[in-house]
Amino acid sequence: LSDTPNIFSAATLEKIVSRVFRAMGTPQDITDQVSHSLILSNLVGHDSHGIIRIMEYYGWVKSFDLNPIATPSISWSRGSSAFIDGAWGFGQPAAMLATREVISLAKNTGTASVVIGRSNHVGRLGEYVNEIANHGMLGISFCNAAATIVAPYGGAKPLMGTNPFAWAIPGTGEMNTVLDFSTALIAAGKVIHAAMSGEIIQSGALIDKDGNPSTNPNDLQNGGALLPFGEHKGSGLSVLIDVAAGALSGVLPAAIENTGHGNGTVIIAMDISNYVKIDIFKNIAEAFLVALHSTKAIDGPEVLMPGELEFRTKTLREKAGIHVSRGVQENILIVARELGVEIPEFD
Amino acid sequence: LSDTPNIFSAATLEKIVSRVFRAMGTPQDITDQVSHSLILSNLVGHDSHGIIRIMEYYGWVKSFDLNPIATPSISWSRGSSAFIDGAWGFGQPAAMLATREVISLAKNTGTASVVIGRSNHVGRLGEYVNEIANHGMLGISFCNAAATIVAPYGGAKPLMGTNPFAWAIPGTGEMNTVLDFSTALIAAGKVIHAAMSGEIIQSGALIDKDGNPSTNPNDLQNGGALLPFGEHKGSGLSVLIDVAAGALSGVLPAAIENTGHGNGTVIIAMDISNYVKIDIFKNIAEAFLVALHSTKAIDGPEVLMPGELEFRTKTLREKAGIHVSRGVQENILIVARELGVEIPEFD
Repeated sequence: LSDTPNIFSAATLEKIVSRVFRAMGTPQDITDQVSHSLILSNLVGHDSHGIIRIMEYYGWVKSFDLNPIATPSISWSRGSSAFIDGAWGFGQPAAMLATREVISLAKNTGTASVVIGRSNHVGRLGEYVNEIANHGMLGISFCNAAATIVAPYGGAKPLMGTNPFAWAIPGTGEMNTVLDFSTALIAAGKVIHAAMSGEIIQSGALIDKDGNPSTNPNDLQNGGALLPFGEHKGSGLSVLIDVAAGALSGVLPAAIENTGHGNGTVIIAMDISNYVKIDIFKNIAEAFLVALHSTKAIDGPEVLMPGELEFRTKTLREKAGIHVSRGVQENILIVARELGVEIPEFD
Repeated sequence: LSDTPNIFSAATLEKIVSRVFRAMGTPQDITDQVSHSLILSNLVGHDSHGIIRIMEYYGWVKSFDLNPIATPSISWSRGSSAFIDGAWGFGQPAAMLATREVISLAKNTGTASVVIGRSNHVGRLGEYVNEIANHGMLGISFCNAAATIVAPYGGAKPLMGTNPFAWAIPGTGEMNTVLDFSTALIAAGKVIHAAMSGEIIQSGALIDKDGNPSTNPNDLQNGGALLPFGEHKGSGLSVLIDVAAGALSGVLPAAIENTGHGNGTVIIAMDISNYVKIDIFKNIAEAFLVALHSTKAIDGPEVLMPGELEFRTKTLREKAGIHVSRGVQENILIVARELGVEIPEFD
């Protein structure tokens, strides 16, 4: 790995990220969790949620929106519900604490939910529901994002965040079935990248400041908005996520309090073994996977289960390493220099 | 109402439906529940799930797929989980029993789930999650439909049912926020109607038997398939619903056992008052609704909350009555005659 330029092992990248966060004063256990979550996103192929986030998080630290030394805690836990206080620290440790708590509660009672308040970016929801599935449970999670960037279906102005939804169930072998999507049709990052590159955006993804359909990426920054996926259905999911996660968590919907950052997160777990033996459940999942693969057209592309591409990418990148562009490396080096951290791997 | 041809009050239609089911031997309490659920669908504007279903249900009774005298029961209930045995009777009473049980469990423990097995068509999921929201809770429900009619995203063959998903939270006044959608882009009924009428189908909704995009409605019956909404995201929702609801309920995914009928159903409830005072939650929902309405373009259509159109339609039809076409009336009269039931209202 070390001989290939700009390719790094996950372990090397985790060490680099750890050094940066430790220099912000972040405790070791919190540092380990955030570093692991970020690099896991790179491993499964979602580089937008990976090491690149260092710059954004450091910006929040400098603006006092993110307290790098905060530790999340369980505010209360009773019956089959609990509430996690993220203490406006990193969101990933709060979400993993919530995940462990919801699994523990669901083991005791059968079904449980945990809500996270005062939380920054929790990262990739797929990580948490996958962990729930690893424990033989069904996991559902959704969070609102407290920045107005998505217009509701038929609307002309931004109202909601990109409000992701994730759902996982146990699969065969080590591969669970993991669905994890933004309720926006395309990512804001893609629009910003297109604006920089002079490219146009696919139709149906964007409106301008007057609510007219647009393919010009510059319209997003000029009062326009992203559109939800799936017309009224995807828009409805985004609305439910925004109100439910925003109100339950106290982070509030962005339409009411547009802080520009913060995630209100809900995680639900159902213990499958109450309803059906886990081996039978996995056999059904396996038979479904085989049937799904067989729907491939003769000359068509493979048809994959939700999460199958991520599982393959992870297997591949664990061996071949993770590519980090020179541009990203240089941006991380700027942060590192400000914090007095050495990253010889990027020099 | 009685002077307007083909317009009937909800009470009149409920009485008509009751007479038909009672003549099949269905107990009074089950009859009341099914009649109410069907006509409630007409009231909220979803006529496809209303009185028209009598013909389909009677067909299942004659083929011994639906036992009209069966009564659902709670197989077990412990902690925050329960299982309802639909006994292969009508699905609506099983779903309403499950709804009452999940509300009761969530009141005790905070969060709960109930699964329904051996169930016929449960009808409109929106009815059940709306009832959960009436009790100050968040309700999520999904069910698989054991008939292969929808191809997965990128696939060339039908694999899944239309697998609906519903989600409700308390709103303002009597109007909750209620999302309820099929994961197919369009309803099978719409395709069948288009085939009868010689119309074409919107592009992106249908493929032919070779997996090619089609707008010819006849392709559905000739080995083609409906497509999911929202590309890979809606398709992923359908996959998760099919495996989770199919395996937990024992109804099985249609890809494994294509019975052509039956619903495996999951209902989840979260008691909101554990997390936030219900009045505060409703105030946030109200503020969000106002903000959403304000995203309307100057000359654009109204922008509505999920469930708002249904709420308005119900208010309207409670006063103005429900239209039942002569064709539907005549089909119901055929069933009635076979059962020896008089329906003077339709003569």
